Amino acid sequence: MAKGKIYMMPMTMGAENAEQVIPTEVLERIKNIRFFIVENVKTTRRFLRSIDKTFPIDDSTFFEINKRVQPEQLYEFVQPAVKGEEVAVFSETGCPGIADPGSEIVKIAHQKGIQVVPHVGPSSILLGLMASGFNGQHFTFNGYLPKERKDRIQKLKSMERNAYNGETQIFMDTPYRNMNVMEDLLQNLKESTQLCIAANITTDKESIKTKSIADWKKSKTNLDKIPVMFLIGC
Amino acid sequence: MAKGKIYMMPMTMGAENAEQVIPTEVLERIKNIRFFIVENVKTTRRFLRSIDKTFPIDDSTFFEINKRVQPEQLYEFVQPAVKGEEVAVFSETGCPGIADPGSEIVKIAHQKGIQVVPHVGPSSILLGLMASGFNGQHFTFNGYLPKERKDRIQKLKSMERNAYNGETQIFMDTPYRNMNVMEDLLQNLKESTQLCIAANITTDKESIKTKSIADWKKSKTNLDKIPVMFLIGC
Repeated sequence: MAKGKIYMMPMTMGAENAEQVIPTEVLERIKNIRFFIVENVKTTRRFLRSIDKTFPIDDSTFFEINKRVQPEQLYEFVQPAVKGEEVAVFSETGCPGIADPGSEIVKIAHQKGIQVVPHVGPSSILLGLMASGFNGQHFTFNGYLPKERKDRIQKLKSMERNAYNGETQIFMDTPYRNMNVMEDLLQNLKESTQLCIAANITTDKESIKTKSIADWKKSKTNLDKIPVMFLIGC
Repeated sequence: MAKGKIYMMPMTMGAENAEQVIPTEVLERIKNIRFFIVENVKTTRRFLRSIDKTFPIDDSTFFEINKRVQPEQLYEFVQPAVKGEEVAVFSETGCPGIADPGSEIVKIAHQKGIQVVPHVGPSSILLGLMASGFNGQHFTFNGYLPKERKDRIQKLKSMERNAYNGETQIFMDTPYRNMNVMEDLLQNLKESTQLCIAANITTDKESIKTKSIADWKKSKTNLDKIPVMFLIGC
């Protein structure tokens, strides 16, 4: 029996049309899949209905990777693919497998020799980098910043050093902490350091700006509770 | 007079249909642009004709960022945007501004207060990472490896150390050196280190596999002269 495939499928990031951020052929392929391994079932169902009003939700199988899922259950989730079915992996937003539990599924797929096929979709990391003007030959995504202020400032300073060595630094934080992060950046980085703030990527309110710390200090910037990707570069 | 915008536009990576890797709304927007700042004029013209047979190439303006271009000329290239026109930036393949001279244009755009808008398209870095099963919360793209063997081996070992610290390492080399890189990886990394080889991404021949160095040693892998993204992770 031929093995199925595991498709790493993108989702919209919230406010956009699917046709704005997901290729047509990817949308068509999603519509034909009936097995889903997802970060959030509710979000996935809503997305499926948004791209196809008649999507047969009730005839589809959804496996949710949440905190209650035990590691051995992940092996059950990939069983449909082992048996020849096509299975889609969805993150809660954007591309799966980058900063979500989807990568655990991919690990198992590789162990079992199931083909993993990634598909194009929106990624704030990549879109932010493209529009920053920073070095894309060498860059690091650092994920979320440490919660403790002391650790956070130490991390920001260490990233600044790497940026001066030609390695663009990308990071984020939970939206309600953005203003604290901004304060820490302005107070602790050098005046000449270049900072890119990419806010509300792919939405109507998208704003991507690169300025020196000195110039950011001159303007008032409200980032409270909005999705932001921060980049330090040179 | 209102300023124009600079759109960071994706291109196909070679073998695929545009509808497979570029969203419809992005393709529609590209068709309406008449000013282009590109890495390669010939490739861009071919791409424009492939998505629209009647694209008015002769009524469009192309600026090529090649080795003969002087830094001050880049300021001329963005003039149409300063004057209110919409301008597209294209790399030779995939997404612009990541590993091409497009980022220099973006720098100037930010200096002049011109809005930079990134669009979704194919990126071997991101697609490879999504399908690797490796940690996407922390990853580094290292660009091309050093040419000298001694330096290359040192770099590979340093990346392996970072991978064991939880930071996924992504890198590439010129396709005709892939087999040398593979040899260096098998000879110098630990048996238990996980290596993902993502070859021919987005084409019919796409193959993405993650295995330990010990397992890679057991199989014969021909990567000669094909596009490959290498990832080391855990």
